[in-house]
Amino acid sequence: MTNVLITFPIKEKFRQELTGKFPQVHFDFSDSIEGAGDKKVTVLVTYGSDLTEEILEQLTDLKWVMVASAGVDKLPLEKLGERAILVTNVSGIHKTPMAESVLAHILSLNRALPLIHEQQKQKVWEKMKSSELRGSKALILGPGAIGGEIGRLLQAFGVYTIGCSRSGSVHDGMDEDISFEHITERLPEADYIISVLPSTPETRWILDRSHFQRMKKTAVFMNFGRGDLVKEEVIVEALQQGLIAHSVLDVFEQEPLPVESPLWDLENCTVSPHVSALSAKYVERALEIFKENLQVWLAENGEFKNVIETKRGY
Amino acid sequence: MTNVLITFPIKEKFRQELTGKFPQVHFDFSDSIEGAGDKKVTVLVTYGSDLTEEILEQLTDLKWVMVASAGVDKLPLEKLGERAILVTNVSGIHKTPMAESVLAHILSLNRALPLIHEQQKQKVWEKMKSSELRGSKALILGPGAIGGEIGRLLQAFGVYTIGCSRSGSVHDGMDEDISFEHITERLPEADYIISVLPSTPETRWILDRSHFQRMKKTAVFMNFGRGDLVKEEVIVEALQQGLIAHSVLDVFEQEPLPVESPLWDLENCTVSPHVSALSAKYVERALEIFKENLQVWLAENGEFKNVIETKRGY
Repeated sequence: MTNVLITFPIKEKFRQELTGKFPQVHFDFSDSIEGAGDKKVTVLVTYGSDLTEEILEQLTDLKWVMVASAGVDKLPLEKLGERAILVTNVSGIHKTPMAESVLAHILSLNRALPLIHEQQKQKVWEKMKSSELRGSKALILGPGAIGGEIGRLLQAFGVYTIGCSRSGSVHDGMDEDISFEHITERLPEADYIISVLPSTPETRWILDRSHFQRMKKTAVFMNFGRGDLVKEEVIVEALQQGLIAHSVLDVFEQEPLPVESPLWDLENCTVSPHVSALSAKYVERALEIFKENLQVWLAENGEFKNVIETKRGY
Repeated sequence: MTNVLITFPIKEKFRQELTGKFPQVHFDFSDSIEGAGDKKVTVLVTYGSDLTEEILEQLTDLKWVMVASAGVDKLPLEKLGERAILVTNVSGIHKTPMAESVLAHILSLNRALPLIHEQQKQKVWEKMKSSELRGSKALILGPGAIGGEIGRLLQAFGVYTIGCSRSGSVHDGMDEDISFEHITERLPEADYIISVLPSTPETRWILDRSHFQRMKKTAVFMNFGRGDLVKEEVIVEALQQGLIAHSVLDVFEQEPLPVESPLWDLENCTVSPHVSALSAKYVERALEIFKENLQVWLAENGEFKNVIETKRGY
């Protein structure tokens, strides 16, 4: 018997779709992981952060964890690996909202939208300085599915894109590809430095003060990957000292961002509460991937989508 | 002798470029049209609004008006036509900043940027609803150079574009083309109604209350063309009654928008002070077109760029 526990709320419409399509499966729409230990759960569908090592130990029948997010760094990956539990995510569904968010922030800054909104509040009719995106250059850290979609859209706006990955191999949406070792020498030419890197041991704290010193004073630094790419104090200092012009952050060392953080008050920092991947279509898309994988699971035939290698962490 | 009067300020660098490149021409960098009557001006380079009928009568040697904007509706076109004075504009240079502005506003609304900024001011970490641009539909009134660039970019985001023009003929950047007569029947399916129509007798007040009643309640109406497309009271009513979700206006019946206008206070209206075409590169690009045309003028050979038919008004 396949016992599926879904630990986040989903609409009645989607519940009916699942139960109708898979009558041989028992679905538990608990909206929570509480009491999961008593339920003989074989398949866990979760946003990820609720699956602690402690709960994992109780789930002795668990065979598959489907994470409805892209990052899996909060999962007890080592324990899951030891027990050879299948881990899948939904990384493909983030690329559209995330790329749209990145472009929204870049264009909004270029076209002075925050100032337009401010002036409207005060009923001030005054022309302001604005610039163009066309002809600029972007360095994209993590040119995978999400980074590639960002690159593709930037190219449509006439931006030259440089993808930066471990291997430096060729990626879609990039005019050029370099490896991490060559970041430093290319930073001085980038107008936008955009990270969508996941959190892995290799990408942790890879940017430091020396990197920001190499950036253009007019550069915009954007972190939409994970908060452990660079220390918050390094970003704060870079913004306060004018090493760069602006920063747009959707991820932070500590989330929610503590009220004490100086980032909140910096005029040249946009604090986005980790929402760039969200979308009204999110759950629908996540469930589509789940349904495809569930079919493979039940048929014991075919290939799973979005399998995570627990050792690599992505 | 070719006497050129430039009535707006341009940088020293550009002045030197002009005088160096055209030693046979006399340039008057007055930053103003005042006293032009005494200067035997043959070529007038202006943003347009300073050339009144009165001044035009004084400029008896005038042969060419180069307007450094796209709209020529404020020019005394009839008088210019009678005297067979050449009129050229710089319409090509607006498409990049304008299309970037339109996309900036659309993406900003979709990705909830105004709310993100508001929450930051109050140090509030809270997820908000946001949607995706992909899969939506746009109706573009005026699918010329600017509309086509908007269409091309929207298509890159997976938006279906319908161009709406007098003729309904095929235009770049459009998935479909219709004529003005068919607007009404296609309004109910559009998520975005974007006008970049110039002001001509044919396009004046072509939208009225009946059109807004046909729009989706979730639709966004954007006017980036001219303020005489639709009466302000019609937009105000549509926004107040929720006939549409939002409006982004860069042009108005009266500019500057009077402080009394209810548009300033409407939460579902973005008031942009006619800045969508501006860009740090504006003057540079305008002068490039001027220099090309000046070469044609002096050589008395070749074809002028961006010639305005004074009778049609574009």
